[in-house]
Amino acid sequence: MTRLFLTLKCPDTIGIIHNVTGCLAENNCNIVESNQWTDSSNNTFYMRVAFDSYTFDYVDLSDLFQSVATKFDMTYRVYEDRKTRVLILVSKSDHCLLDLLYRASNNSLPIDVVAIVSNHESIEPIANQYKVPFFYWPAYHYNRKDQEAAIFNLYQAEYIDLVVLARYMQVLSPDLCDKLGAKKVINVHHSFLPSFSGSQPYQQAWKKGVKLIGATAHYVTSVLDDGPIIEQEVERVDHSYTPEKLIAIGRDIETTVLARAVRYHAEHRIFINDNKTVVFK
Amino acid sequence: MTRLFLTLKCPDTIGIIHNVTGCLAENNCNIVESNQWTDSSNNTFYMRVAFDSYTFDYVDLSDLFQSVATKFDMTYRVYEDRKTRVLILVSKSDHCLLDLLYRASNNSLPIDVVAIVSNHESIEPIANQYKVPFFYWPAYHYNRKDQEAAIFNLYQAEYIDLVVLARYMQVLSPDLCDKLGAKKVINVHHSFLPSFSGSQPYQQAWKKGVKLIGATAHYVTSVLDDGPIIEQEVERVDHSYTPEKLIAIGRDIETTVLARAVRYHAEHRIFINDNKTVVFK
Amino acid sequence: MTRLFLTLKCPDTIGIIHNVTGCLAENNCNIVESNQWTDSSNNTFYMRVAFDSYTFDYVDLSDLFQSVATKFDMTYRVYEDRKTRVLILVSKSDHCLLDLLYRASNNSLPIDVVAIVSNHESIEPIANQYKVPFFYWPAYHYNRKDQEAAIFNLYQAEYIDLVVLARYMQVLSPDLCDKLGAKKVINVHHSFLPSFSGSQPYQQAWKKGVKLIGATAHYVTSVLDDGPIIEQEVERVDHSYTPEKLIAIGRDIETTVLARAVRYHAEHRIFINDNKTVVFK
Amino acid sequence: MTRLFLTLKCPDTIGIIHNVTGCLAENNCNIVESNQWTDSSNNTFYMRVAFDSYTFDYVDLSDLFQSVATKFDMTYRVYEDRKTRVLILVSKSDHCLLDLLYRASNNSLPIDVVAIVSNHESIEPIANQYKVPFFYWPAYHYNRKDQEAAIFNLYQAEYIDLVVLARYMQVLSPDLCDKLGAKKVINVHHSFLPSFSGSQPYQQAWKKGVKLIGATAHYVTSVLDDGPIIEQEVERVDHSYTPEKLIAIGRDIETTVLARAVRYHAEHRIFINDNKTVVFK
Repeated sequence: MTRLFLTLKCPDTIGIIHNVTGCLAENNCNIVESNQWTDSSNNTFYMRVAFDSYTFDYVDLSDLFQSVATKFDMTYRVYEDRKTRVLILVSKSDHCLLDLLYRASNNSLPIDVVAIVSNHESIEPIANQYKVPFFYWPAYHYNRKDQEAAIFNLYQAEYIDLVVLARYMQVLSPDLCDKLGAKKVINVHHSFLPSFSGSQPYQQAWKKGVKLIGATAHYVTSVLDDGPIIEQEVERVDHSYTPEKLIAIGRDIETTVLARAVRYHAEHRIFINDNKTVVFK
Repeated sequence: MTRLFLTLKCPDTIGIIHNVTGCLAENNCNIVESNQWTDSSNNTFYMRVAFDSYTFDYVDLSDLFQSVATKFDMTYRVYEDRKTRVLILVSKSDHCLLDLLYRASNNSLPIDVVAIVSNHESIEPIANQYKVPFFYWPAYHYNRKDQEAAIFNLYQAEYIDLVVLARYMQVLSPDLCDKLGAKKVINVHHSFLPSFSGSQPYQQAWKKGVKLIGATAHYVTSVLDDGPIIEQEVERVDHSYTPEKLIAIGRDIETTVLARAVRYHAEHRIFINDNKTVVFK
Repeated sequence: MTRLFLTLKCPDTIGIIHNVTGCLAENNCNIVESNQWTDSSNNTFYMRVAFDSYTFDYVDLSDLFQSVATKFDMTYRVYEDRKTRVLILVSKSDHCLLDLLYRASNNSLPIDVVAIVSNHESIEPIANQYKVPFFYWPAYHYNRKDQEAAIFNLYQAEYIDLVVLARYMQVLSPDLCDKLGAKKVINVHHSFLPSFSGSQPYQQAWKKGVKLIGATAHYVTSVLDDGPIIEQEVERVDHSYTPEKLIAIGRDIETTVLARAVRYHAEHRIFINDNKTVVFK
Repeated sequence: MTRLFLTLKCPDTIGIIHNVTGCLAENNCNIVESNQWTDSSNNTFYMRVAFDSYTFDYVDLSDLFQSVATKFDMTYRVYEDRKTRVLILVSKSDHCLLDLLYRASNNSLPIDVVAIVSNHESIEPIANQYKVPFFYWPAYHYNRKDQEAAIFNLYQAEYIDLVVLARYMQVLSPDLCDKLGAKKVINVHHSFLPSFSGSQPYQQAWKKGVKLIGATAHYVTSVLDDGPIIEQEVERVDHSYTPEKLIAIGRDIETTVLARAVRYHAEHRIFINDNKTVVFK
């Protein structure tokens, strides 16, 4: 028995679920979890099925599913049940990094942290402690192209599935974003987007006097802080919170939000729908 | 085109979804929302499908579905898209009553409040204002049997789908509970059950010094405050809250929790699973 | 015995609390609740004291307090324990209005709703039911000056303490805002400001694909949706929520947020601190 | 300049705040934060003041304050601004331990973790990594007295201020509880007390079908899971959560709740009021 995952999207019509589940039943698969949703504003159908296969593996089933996919003009993919290979980019703040490493180590997140890249040497002991290869690659204006090329080489050499910006204080160039492609990079922004995009969001929030502060995990696109939002969370604050205290509170929210977003991604629960996400929890 | 709802439960096995959706596709129905879940602890499969039927009505489809149901040993029902007929029982506190009437009146809850019964005359003006038939039936120890008989007669005469205890401070007798049957009565308890069951829960919560207080909506069974929980919510409090202030805070939580539970019921989203609920939101 | 409230602000220095509480103790007052906070970014001290006076009334105490106030260069006010006189402006959506009227009627909000003004006749039955004077004053581009003059006359004639925009879909002119003055008008905006200011915020939120939607209660200034924020709240949503469903969810958040803001104001818990608020809960 | 903290409780009467703040002002202290509250059910006044002293230290001020304390029959204490010395007891689950060590290391919690005791050897590498002395003391029925004696010796030898049971799966004997005294031990219980006290609370919660699960941090008394509650938090769950998933969700809640409780304690924000707490946040 193998646990597998099927994700698909196609124009909505009658009979999709019947055909999809028919293909699974014919090939001796038992559905464990199934989610589907139609965006009626653009008539697009989204579906995720987790199932146990008793006869075939994910390569076989990907082939067997082709005829259904063709019939309904689907984009689809069958995933095997393996850990997502993650590359973490991080700057000085280590709270998100530590949390992801801990959750990976006790199997509460289905990811393998394959490598850590930082522009701060202070991160190295953490990487060593979790026995993850570490690359200290300083990032300056003058070496940006080289540094990004190194990241991209590592990405390819290590067959990375997902790049996580775990409080990485450098903006990826549009060129690198394009080369990595859609749904390949998750960032955590330390504000409740779209409020307070850009730099120093907690300072901005303090100046505005908001009563809740938040954090946002989103896919990275070539437009800064504007990619599809995956997850958000907020916490109540009041007038007495200084920017420093907002930053301290924010660390916990960022940690939570990023861990959730990485989980949804690693469990193949997220679809891109225009510049928004569909997340089957 | 008619919007219909199918709910079913059966022992889990391969092919259920395929057969269910096959029956719907063959009979020219388009699935709008579909939820399913298997309780692996007792191998029971639960499913709810909302769909648009272009050819048949709910009576036809109930017949057409019989063969699938037999094949999988299902308990099932097809619901038409009509408002749930509700009888509200209420004592002196009117906040839940007013909220339900308001949500019914502006169609944000799919219910018809068919009648209101109270053991307090003070409720009558509210009923009048919403033009709902009102019955002032005092409840004392000596007339309990008669009062409950009157409620049951009203329940039958008006083809009530659901009885809502909207802060009704009388305990229904086991006899009445049994006659009404399972999934027929929703109560809101003013605590975070199973803590503080029985009377004066806010006083109990205050004595214990809890830091969150809550409310619970549950189906009524013949065991007091022990029926399947449908929905719960809490709010943060602190040492400075008196029992009176807890009661005031609690009113808002009770209102929210009861409205949600009634919605889930009226939209056929709830299943009983032993003494728990499955709620497809 | 009379319950009174003292609010004050002044430059921070040593000895303020000692002098304030000394004045109260000397004049036979017992402190029931006391809050103070210093904004170290502008060295301003804020204080609110609720106390029971056994000898003097609020006019006496206001005089008796003058010497302490002078010593510390304070702005201060002593409030008697009476209900805040409220004028509600409302358009078609009645959920906030109904909630405020209900909370006023059962004394869970310390306000008197003195009058209701609407540009929609449909609001009249609600006003009648709660026996509140109602004024149907249509608002068009051509009669804006006259309509606002009428509002201002009513405000003065009825000694209104607070104007509440309970989903009032007209923008008050800068001229009227200036005449009413600071801290005189509370508005509820149906978004989590500063995101989605302006019109159709739920439509904007839907387009952006945010995972939490919110509402904001703030004091009105002559800059649209930019006055000091008093209270905010959010609720979790997901991809499946249509703009219509966001609007329905939002109604409950708006209701909650506005009721809280009105309570804080009516209990003299709010101070303006630059363009932010200090709220002593 | 030294930051100091004064906490006191006494029977409520007129003039307390005036006298307390008078003593501080006379001795050249500037109040930074002040909280007070009267429990009118037992007429007890509680106060916490954080202040900057420009002339005296905490020993001086403790003496200088004695006359005020005598006048009002106060229990009081002046604390210097130093880190709380913490002894952590932990069993196999390391999530709370790691979180406390991380927050201590980056100064977001004002504690020094002086030693870690565990009945599981697997905890040792974590202690080593944070350079905290570690004691592997297995706990069996037959050696309980000796093991507790060793803990108590360590407690005394290291001048421990606070013992934290960070998921310590052994029940402290009433004898040890008594020797440590009130407000000396904080435990995190993995349920929303008073529901599901005792063992396997997540299993209990699953059986009951609650819709929110929680965790509770409380002071330990000789009665199991019944000491004064300091902090609680909950998270929404649904029918689909297995006991294993509840445990995983619960880990995050336990971590959050325990860190908050330790902070409140270390910042001298907690008072015992009968079997409840007063927490000035």
